[in-house]
Amino acid sequence: MIDDFVGGATDRAQEGGFVLPGHQNIMLMEVVRNVTILVVGSVALDTVETPFARVEEALGGAASYFSTAASLYNQVNLVAVVGSDFPREHLDFWCSRPVNLAGLQMQEGKTFRWTARYHMDMNARDTLDTQLGVYAGFHAVIPPEYRSSPLLFLANIQPELQLEVLEQMPQARLTVLDTMELWIMTERPRLTEVIERVDMLLMSEEEVRQYTHQSSIVAGVRQLLNMGLQYVVIKQGSYGALLFGADGTYFSAPSFPLEEVIDPTGAGDAFAGGFLGYLSTVEPEPGGRYSIEDIKCGVVHGNILGSFVCEDFSIGRLRTLTMDDVVVRYQTLVDCSHFDPNWRPIRIRNKV
Amino acid sequence: MIDDFVGGATDRAQEGGFVLPGHQNIMLMEVVRNVTILVVGSVALDTVETPFARVEEALGGAASYFSTAASLYNQVNLVAVVGSDFPREHLDFWCSRPVNLAGLQMQEGKTFRWTARYHMDMNARDTLDTQLGVYAGFHAVIPPEYRSSPLLFLANIQPELQLEVLEQMPQARLTVLDTMELWIMTERPRLTEVIERVDMLLMSEEEVRQYTHQSSIVAGVRQLLNMGLQYVVIKQGSYGALLFGADGTYFSAPSFPLEEVIDPTGAGDAFAGGFLGYLSTVEPEPGGRYSIEDIKCGVVHGNILGSFVCEDFSIGRLRTLTMDDVVVRYQTLVDCSHFDPNWRPIRIRNKV
Repeated sequence: MIDDFVGGATDRAQEGGFVLPGHQNIMLMEVVRNVTILVVGSVALDTVETPFARVEEALGGAASYFSTAASLYNQVNLVAVVGSDFPREHLDFWCSRPVNLAGLQMQEGKTFRWTARYHMDMNARDTLDTQLGVYAGFHAVIPPEYRSSPLLFLANIQPELQLEVLEQMPQARLTVLDTMELWIMTERPRLTEVIERVDMLLMSEEEVRQYTHQSSIVAGVRQLLNMGLQYVVIKQGSYGALLFGADGTYFSAPSFPLEEVIDPTGAGDAFAGGFLGYLSTVEPEPGGRYSIEDIKCGVVHGNILGSFVCEDFSIGRLRTLTMDDVVVRYQTLVDCSHFDPNWRPIRIRNKV
Repeated sequence: MIDDFVGGATDRAQEGGFVLPGHQNIMLMEVVRNVTILVVGSVALDTVETPFARVEEALGGAASYFSTAASLYNQVNLVAVVGSDFPREHLDFWCSRPVNLAGLQMQEGKTFRWTARYHMDMNARDTLDTQLGVYAGFHAVIPPEYRSSPLLFLANIQPELQLEVLEQMPQARLTVLDTMELWIMTERPRLTEVIERVDMLLMSEEEVRQYTHQSSIVAGVRQLLNMGLQYVVIKQGSYGALLFGADGTYFSAPSFPLEEVIDPTGAGDAFAGGFLGYLSTVEPEPGGRYSIEDIKCGVVHGNILGSFVCEDFSIGRLRTLTMDDVVVRYQTLVDCSHFDPNWRPIRIRNKV
């Protein structure tokens, strides 16, 4: 069956199953057929300054990071807008990957621009400037060929736009939502509507506190789960991620200790890309839900993709990333987080 | 053999093997014979304010937290000093546990006092006042009966005092060092001498950056390991702990998500108590070193004891803690951190 697949790779790629490049060492991964991942979010040009370096007008935006990460696993259907100044090379790159650009609008005007500076502790940053450009009048239009995507990532954009997307995607099997402080503060009622309609929410600890007014993260997460969410993922930057499930699941995914963090921008979006990318390669349970073991494994993949993205500015590291690299880091995370599951204090030693 | 042990419990307690109270549900743990744990550090009266509550002149100090935590596992030999105002009830409590007080000096004068206030994010605090009291002229004298302790915790005191202890304990099998920003800034050469002579160092990320002048934790840890340490543990507060070994080991111990953090004071000392307490119950390898699997398991025990201490002010939660409680939390940490160790991207699904 593997031979058959390898032999028919080119044909199969036309049918919606993709051949991932550069994985000769570990054979080819056959993806679950016709499972594509839809993302709606920003494509931007970022100017980012860290204590050690600076990059100007590099490819950025949540949807860019997500698409590049998730396309390592499966086909991504991208919905976003860019201006007439958007560099052609970025489109060429996505065309070299299983990223469907049918939903990428091109409009007269300026591409969204974002400027930020990181603190010495790279878990904190200040946004210095935001130029919405063509996003000012953006409305998400989901092409008909995208509507069968069972997996949906609502990247960090206005809650009103996220609601528009949900209206057009009533059949999605798993919907994941990201947001930020700005919407918690200025668009709370709309954001609440979105939270009540999705399956999983990604938030930082600070965002949980802001939204729930709970000082305890555990209490805040419980409040969020009571809104109907199946899962809440707490993004902890360099500390990894926590998964809380409405079924009582708690999972603490280990962080990967990076020698050098070049730029953490996009780590949360790459996390979502690794998470949904992985889930797109496994079968859900008969009822259509993913098993909790697969959800946990997805969180680990999210951490892995999130760690890689920090190793370079923009999507630099994701461009060259292969599934081989993911496998190596996965094994490292297994080794660094598993410990004796059978310890009990009944130990008889040094018998006289 | 268990019956024999239970039957002879009282006698054995006289010989240095201790019967742990309150563990009927899980049988009794037989400790490794004659393995005691020595701690040198502060015993204090703490006044602590959190955003939600305040406690005055409660039992505090690194050695207090450590002794109470580690004595759940095995006998602790305590070296510290208290003033003539030290409440008798605290001594009575330790007498009810396997805490040897032969090395606890009582001097005319005031017990060490520490006052601090926590921020809304309880991972940060400000020290408001420190009154050294009888610690001003303290010198550590190790009673002869303590000198065979193979496990040694140098809690956070002046590096010069820590050196005095090391001089008196040349046979220790595993020495663990804690310190703080004050000594990094004011006693750097002495602190360096201590680091070069111990096996394991506990530090926060900020302390690693301060001491090594490296912005990368991984690079900072490597610099520390190059000083001759076997292990560096990075204390991450509510995010758990990271273990780095000179042998290349990396281990990320999961954090336990507390519903409510009452007071994080002493979490690092209770961590050390759980770590060395656990190691005191297992046999080292033939060469005298502990296996890396036992070191990892010790870090998990450290996290467990550190999490319990946050559930109340002072040593409140540790007073009533039983090994049953530890077992339950251990299992929770296994469940929340282990994931499919066998994932590979070779998955053949949806065969045609």
